[in-house]
Amino acid sequence: MTENSMTELSGKGNTAITAAVLIIGNEILSGRTQDTNLNHLAKILGSWGIQVREALVIPDIEDTIVNSVNTLRKNFDYVFTTGGIGPTHDDITAECIAKAFAVPLVMHPDIEAVIRRREAPDDVMQNRLRMARVPQGASLIDNPTGGPQGFAMANVHVMAGIPLVMQAMLSSLEGKLTTGAIVQSRSITAYLGESQIAAELTAIQERFADLDVGSYPFFRDSRYGTTLVVRGTDITNLEAAAQQVREMITAAGGEPLDAQR
Amino acid sequence: MTENSMTELSGKGNTAITAAVLIIGNEILSGRTQDTNLNHLAKILGSWGIQVREALVIPDIEDTIVNSVNTLRKNFDYVFTTGGIGPTHDDITAECIAKAFAVPLVMHPDIEAVIRRREAPDDVMQNRLRMARVPQGASLIDNPTGGPQGFAMANVHVMAGIPLVMQAMLSSLEGKLTTGAIVQSRSITAYLGESQIAAELTAIQERFADLDVGSYPFFRDSRYGTTLVVRGTDITNLEAAAQQVREMITAAGGEPLDAQR
Repeated sequence: MTENSMTELSGKGNTAITAAVLIIGNEILSGRTQDTNLNHLAKILGSWGIQVREALVIPDIEDTIVNSVNTLRKNFDYVFTTGGIGPTHDDITAECIAKAFAVPLVMHPDIEAVIRRREAPDDVMQNRLRMARVPQGASLIDNPTGGPQGFAMANVHVMAGIPLVMQAMLSSLEGKLTTGAIVQSRSITAYLGESQIAAELTAIQERFADLDVGSYPFFRDSRYGTTLVVRGTDITNLEAAAQQVREMITAAGGEPLDAQR
Repeated sequence: MTENSMTELSGKGNTAITAAVLIIGNEILSGRTQDTNLNHLAKILGSWGIQVREALVIPDIEDTIVNSVNTLRKNFDYVFTTGGIGPTHDDITAECIAKAFAVPLVMHPDIEAVIRRREAPDDVMQNRLRMARVPQGASLIDNPTGGPQGFAMANVHVMAGIPLVMQAMLSSLEGKLTTGAIVQSRSITAYLGESQIAAELTAIQERFADLDVGSYPFFRDSRYGTTLVVRGTDITNLEAAAQQVREMITAAGGEPLDAQR
């Protein structure tokens, strides 16, 4: 979808606006760091009406980043990247985005101004100024933590990897993106095995083709149970399906417990 | 890499054996569930000598699963999937793997035996037996929790989404996979800004082209700092690079602190 067609869709509440999350960083793939950015992005973007449909975790390798950005930006309305925009040699996201869009990498005066606010010896400042480089034509994403900004190039939004900084940058985008239908959910927990309700759950899914009916088993307080989640954009259908899930649990000899998620 | 060529490589300690992780489940992309399986897989596989090079999170959609499996299994030595092997209608991983390999889905007598051990009414048993379906020709992955097994089809290993069950299944694979060079790491923390050491860090990376030198900034105890991580398979080079990192920190006026990771 082009920027133009997204603008036209703005406000049409029943259209799905989709996103992919691209997590850039060797530290996630080595197991050193537990990613939490995908979860945060999925929740916040979802609450705005942007549905995360795919996430990809890749290493700090130029060709991989360039190719992934180019594939994802064609397949989804938005791409959100995290990681690789610091001042060290392994921070190569900005130059990769420039390559993906075939534009030069340029110094952005507004980021430079933020960086120069904190005094530093010349050599340290030169390193820091690496963070002012953006692909030509990029717009900025505010950074409420006071550090260097992120940037957006067409439908690709480039943010920090540090969760607190990424979350601050994301919060600054609220109200500025094209949003569509908001997927809502109802969750009902029961201390029943999944197999005890599988057949009726299939029937509910078939009755509500526009909803997504999921079953998520767990083991808690020494008991097996499952949380049934119905998700969709039509609240009337959502409530009706949730009621059928409750009745299904009761019929199977369980007690339906409304769950927070 | 084919199964045969992997076998030939077994024991050649300096060859990289690579893996992709495929996380299947709407609940990760909706933000309902924080994935922890990638982190566990990366750590454990890494410790065995299998390097996770990519991770992909996708929804419970047949075409998406089939296409992702077929792409990843060609590009990496191993693929490890999590999620979608329970008894409910949204558990479609087994049938998708069968489609990806163009083989029929068949009942596996050993999984069936495990499932039938726990008595249940006929209709409940019928649902449970969905979990005994595997692609024709699959081998089993033991499930030390006592539940139904996972399975492997060529280089694709299919495991549960529930972390405790996935971890148990993975543990049963120890010693049974082709492994290569083990990537080890040394981590050194300093309460310095990344820009203060960026230039020298680049020089260290250039001096040790076979190592991966990373800088991971953090904010802790009201102070900014960064953890420098050198990773690689050659321990002599690794120790030498780590020593240069320590000297770099001291030269920049910081104190090098050996970190656990």
